Amino acid sequence: MTERVNLAAVLDRPGSVRVEERPVPGLGPREVLVEIASVGVCGSDVHYFREGRIGDFVVTAPLVLGHEASGRVVELGPGASGPAPGTLVAIEPGVPCRHCDQCRAGRYNLCPDVRFLATPPVDGAFTRYLAVPEDFCFPVPPAMSADEAALIEPLCVGVWACRKAGVRPGELVLVTGAGPIGLVAALVAGASGAHVTVCDVNPARLQRAADLGVAATADLRRDELSQLGPAGSFIECTGADGLAGRGLAALEPAGTAVLVGMSAQDELRLPLSLLQTRELVVTGTFRYANCYPAAIALAASGAVPLRSLVDAAFGLTEAQEALQATGHDPALVKVVVHPS
Amino acid sequence: MTERVNLAAVLDRPGSVRVEERPVPGLGPREVLVEIASVGVCGSDVHYFREGRIGDFVVTAPLVLGHEASGRVVELGPGASGPAPGTLVAIEPGVPCRHCDQCRAGRYNLCPDVRFLATPPVDGAFTRYLAVPEDFCFPVPPAMSADEAALIEPLCVGVWACRKAGVRPGELVLVTGAGPIGLVAALVAGASGAHVTVCDVNPARLQRAADLGVAATADLRRDELSQLGPAGSFIECTGADGLAGRGLAALEPAGTAVLVGMSAQDELRLPLSLLQTRELVVTGTFRYANCYPAAIALAASGAVPLRSLVDAAFGLTEAQEALQATGHDPALVKVVVHPS
Amino acid sequence: MTERVNLAAVLDRPGSVRVEERPVPGLGPREVLVEIASVGVCGSDVHYFREGRIGDFVVTAPLVLGHEASGRVVELGPGASGPAPGTLVAIEPGVPCRHCDQCRAGRYNLCPDVRFLATPPVDGAFTRYLAVPEDFCFPVPPAMSADEAALIEPLCVGVWACRKAGVRPGELVLVTGAGPIGLVAALVAGASGAHVTVCDVNPARLQRAADLGVAATADLRRDELSQLGPAGSFIECTGADGLAGRGLAALEPAGTAVLVGMSAQDELRLPLSLLQTRELVVTGTFRYANCYPAAIALAASGAVPLRSLVDAAFGLTEAQEALQATGHDPALVKVVVHPS
Amino acid sequence: MTERVNLAAVLDRPGSVRVEERPVPGLGPREVLVEIASVGVCGSDVHYFREGRIGDFVVTAPLVLGHEASGRVVELGPGASGPAPGTLVAIEPGVPCRHCDQCRAGRYNLCPDVRFLATPPVDGAFTRYLAVPEDFCFPVPPAMSADEAALIEPLCVGVWACRKAGVRPGELVLVTGAGPIGLVAALVAGASGAHVTVCDVNPARLQRAADLGVAATADLRRDELSQLGPAGSFIECTGADGLAGRGLAALEPAGTAVLVGMSAQDELRLPLSLLQTRELVVTGTFRYANCYPAAIALAASGAVPLRSLVDAAFGLTEAQEALQATGHDPALVKVVVHPS
Repeated sequence: MTERVNLAAVLDRPGSVRVEERPVPGLGPREVLVEIASVGVCGSDVHYFREGRIGDFVVTAPLVLGHEASGRVVELGPGASGPAPGTLVAIEPGVPCRHCDQCRAGRYNLCPDVRFLATPPVDGAFTRYLAVPEDFCFPVPPAMSADEAALIEPLCVGVWACRKAGVRPGELVLVTGAGPIGLVAALVAGASGAHVTVCDVNPARLQRAADLGVAATADLRRDELSQLGPAGSFIECTGADGLAGRGLAALEPAGTAVLVGMSAQDELRLPLSLLQTRELVVTGTFRYANCYPAAIALAASGAVPLRSLVDAAFGLTEAQEALQATGHDPALVKVVVHPS
Repeated sequence: MTERVNLAAVLDRPGSVRVEERPVPGLGPREVLVEIASVGVCGSDVHYFREGRIGDFVVTAPLVLGHEASGRVVELGPGASGPAPGTLVAIEPGVPCRHCDQCRAGRYNLCPDVRFLATPPVDGAFTRYLAVPEDFCFPVPPAMSADEAALIEPLCVGVWACRKAGVRPGELVLVTGAGPIGLVAALVAGASGAHVTVCDVNPARLQRAADLGVAATADLRRDELSQLGPAGSFIECTGADGLAGRGLAALEPAGTAVLVGMSAQDELRLPLSLLQTRELVVTGTFRYANCYPAAIALAASGAVPLRSLVDAAFGLTEAQEALQATGHDPALVKVVVHPS
Repeated sequence: MTERVNLAAVLDRPGSVRVEERPVPGLGPREVLVEIASVGVCGSDVHYFREGRIGDFVVTAPLVLGHEASGRVVELGPGASGPAPGTLVAIEPGVPCRHCDQCRAGRYNLCPDVRFLATPPVDGAFTRYLAVPEDFCFPVPPAMSADEAALIEPLCVGVWACRKAGVRPGELVLVTGAGPIGLVAALVAGASGAHVTVCDVNPARLQRAADLGVAATADLRRDELSQLGPAGSFIECTGADGLAGRGLAALEPAGTAVLVGMSAQDELRLPLSLLQTRELVVTGTFRYANCYPAAIALAASGAVPLRSLVDAAFGLTEAQEALQATGHDPALVKVVVHPS
Repeated sequence: MTERVNLAAVLDRPGSVRVEERPVPGLGPREVLVEIASVGVCGSDVHYFREGRIGDFVVTAPLVLGHEASGRVVELGPGASGPAPGTLVAIEPGVPCRHCDQCRAGRYNLCPDVRFLATPPVDGAFTRYLAVPEDFCFPVPPAMSADEAALIEPLCVGVWACRKAGVRPGELVLVTGAGPIGLVAALVAGASGAHVTVCDVNPARLQRAADLGVAATADLRRDELSQLGPAGSFIECTGADGLAGRGLAALEPAGTAVLVGMSAQDELRLPLSLLQTRELVVTGTFRYANCYPAAIALAASGAVPLRSLVDAAFGLTEAQEALQATGHDPALVKVVVHPS
């Protein structure tokens, strides 16, 4: 075995990423070493890259970005029993404490001590080698590519949104936002048997949604959201001011709105009487829990065409370009970085 | 049998109720004639009495108020098989169409064609005789009084709020508002095994809550709602501006807020990031469905002391005084009218 | 308008169906007259045809069979507001009382007074004209054929089984039985994003399942059911003795088994310790409730290829041949009768 | 601090328990040392004591019994942050692996690698000192006694059964078995607002149930279980042959049966057609998960009178007598051992 050399793309100040050598991480109990194969660039990476912060999360020390990752297991740490070296795995990036009330209740995404890749001060996956708890590595089927395996992470956001919405086969689901998250939410809802209408104000994004097989699209510059229903579920993925409230008006009685899109404007305004007279349900999502197996199955069966989401690939030394490209073109769905 | 004479207390203009003779109602298929024994005065009755309207519901013709009613069955209409004449029944006041999607799905409270007592243009129960579908008459146990039977109706509002909240034994439930609805919600939550804290700004109301057996009270002039948790459920019964948002901050992760209190100010403002990072669930209620048997059982067992809610009783000719009394003293929980 | 003449295929004794003229049915309040276009032959029809009974339901007077029906509305009765004459509708065959506890709770399939087509003493749909409550007629999209519209009824059995199972996208679902009901259950589960394995002992049926697009099949003469998991859900559609118990062994912890298949042998035997140590959930289904809109949407989108289920069509005068054909060849999935 | 000496009551062969000195356990990461104050004797302890096995769990080496335990924290291990030394805690006896699918999903009771006190080969709590993960120690309120804190464990079995049953306020719940588990299930159901009928064949046990405040009792030597409904839930706590099936007949449509009682006779026999025509739900329980806070709250509020369950107390050197006493008198509800 040749000696391993680890490299990482490090955000050292807003707008500047440079590649440097980092020690190969040591392995704790039940951890495995993964040689990273592909990492999707997420809007949050771009946000940290440009602004150096997302809300209360501030980059105060050099930070490795990237949390949508796949790779091959190359070594098992003490007590780890798998996956076997050589296995391509999708990496779940948020490792919870396993001890708090939320963890024990199965809501480990709400663990206050979760360590999430590329969220300060935890380094991310724009690196060659990463130590990961064995149970946060999910083997993917042989036919699945490393890029697809990396995109299992955002796919889980869509799976979770659909679970929270209680999407049912045959119902109408409205999704606002045809960016990466809106698209995966829409694709999962469609793969769940729902009739999906994706809404956006950008025709290129809507065209992309249609190309990916979403059943219907609506241009909100022209169509009134509240007229697109009645829908059983509404999944809001933009964070745009006022959209949640308008979407409620498109819901059937007892329908559910899931708010996924984040907003700098924290005040959510909703029509109270509508919420009451239709007994609507409103909730929000924070990442996901227990979604990897389902997301992998949906991608493996072809029900969700993850492959078609990838627009461009960059090497690790081009991580800065990858971040710039994603931020530049809103119609780009997904850019990936190949660290190895 | 002596001939029946029907009287009704009619709201003919805001602030004015007079008693007049009305025909004894005829009975349609599967309806029964009920001789009304007791009718609770609800805040909505007072609102119609004072303002002549509630939001979009406007009193444009003389209207009989009252929808919290009990009475004795005196006659069965064509096809009705019960309850037997002489039976004391609690009357469910909202009769749905039985044909629409909501009715078939069991959400008959959301039926767009529901006919609800004392909601224009449907006359209410401040009358001696009322025709009611047999399946909206619920016999009560012999030990239950007519006043208690009348108060099954508001009790159902509390049962429904607790169902929507998913109140679980042993959890903390916060209720804002110690008026009639807040109290019944609190009493049902307590009877469900929850530890309940009722919040209000009126010490007399809080004292009343304590006297009724609610476990804990908080004076919101002094205590900060968001500090009273973490609660599993939050039931908002005031409609006061901003209270819903403050209550969300008192919820555990994955907790539920049920908004029961109505407001003239229709814009509900909530903290979006809290909703998301804790994955809170917010919903509203509109009346109730399928709650009468449970409410009757809770009252019959003594788990909810309905009897202690009644502060004063008036005859039918005193209906106007009953309405004035309820509106005058916020510490009055429940006034009843005895039409027969 | 030419005068309407009604014909019906009547089972007058086991094994004998003859066509006779019957009066055109009169229309009650909110009923519509439907000119029947297509009726699927169900196993229960064949059972009545051959045996004259199904369990406690005994044919004691001439009976019109057929309950999987579609047709065109030709006349609206008093108070009916639609569907417009000319509309092709799928007919929901079980009309409940709308007044009992089950109806009000939305579980109208459990109404003790439901009147279900072709269940003694209620005549069925092997007839030209049928009176149906307007809200049990569901318009289908223009592209849908009458045969497909008729098969919405069995499709609902699959939709309901999947709802009861709580089928989730990405999970494995095992279905035993590749007859009509097993196939629709499997197709709905697949359309819901599940990976489905259909099990049977008849290779022709398994081939048919594969041809219809079911992801995987297993021949239970060779494969051991308990080895096919772990599955999230198990839908038993054969009623075969012992199969339910063996299927439980294939379930994941907290998995659900839904027993759809009926059996003359009423004693269900299950492994208690497995039920407990895995906290499995077992339930059964009886017809369905509130499924028509979802089933129509799944068929209309192509997610479930109803058209491919139809093997043969007969005229009303050939109803007896249709019943004989269905009973004769177990590999036949669906035979339809065209009464008009 | 005086040096700690640990003693344990060890089952060295069926029928024989002797007290021996054992090393004070060392503390792993995030573990605390608890000085055991009270341990309830469970039927499973008695079974191991008499038979040396329970099903597949065989005592092949000396075993310390006891898993219903409370005690005072005396030392914090590395990384443990509480509870503070001196705190009286209820001990949750089953510590899961925290890494498997079941643990991550919040169903840690179904963890295949759970280590449960007094289940071979894991030693139990009939000992002075026990090392427990900090998050499996639950502080109890000051007014709660050590015996009550010990009985939180069986109370959790009742809480879990009621959760699985979905017990709702105001509904009728049938519980079969008036032994310790049936009683806690009944008490929790009652504390949840249900009307409870406890059924047994032993009048002394039924009297005890009545003394504890259970609303109603039925003697199954006289009363027919199936006639006691219709109930919304049925909680079977005897394991007696045939009782589950008879209880199903007492359920309302869509009612739930929870099978808690274990049986040597593993074949559960149920009426299939009833399961289907009423769409009943049957499930089983295995211990519990996430129940300690709720159980403590129910005991602390007085909603469940744990104190009244204790019939006798023994010292550690009398552990054998405690086991013999529990096994001897079926009317004894709970015997406790005080190790310290």
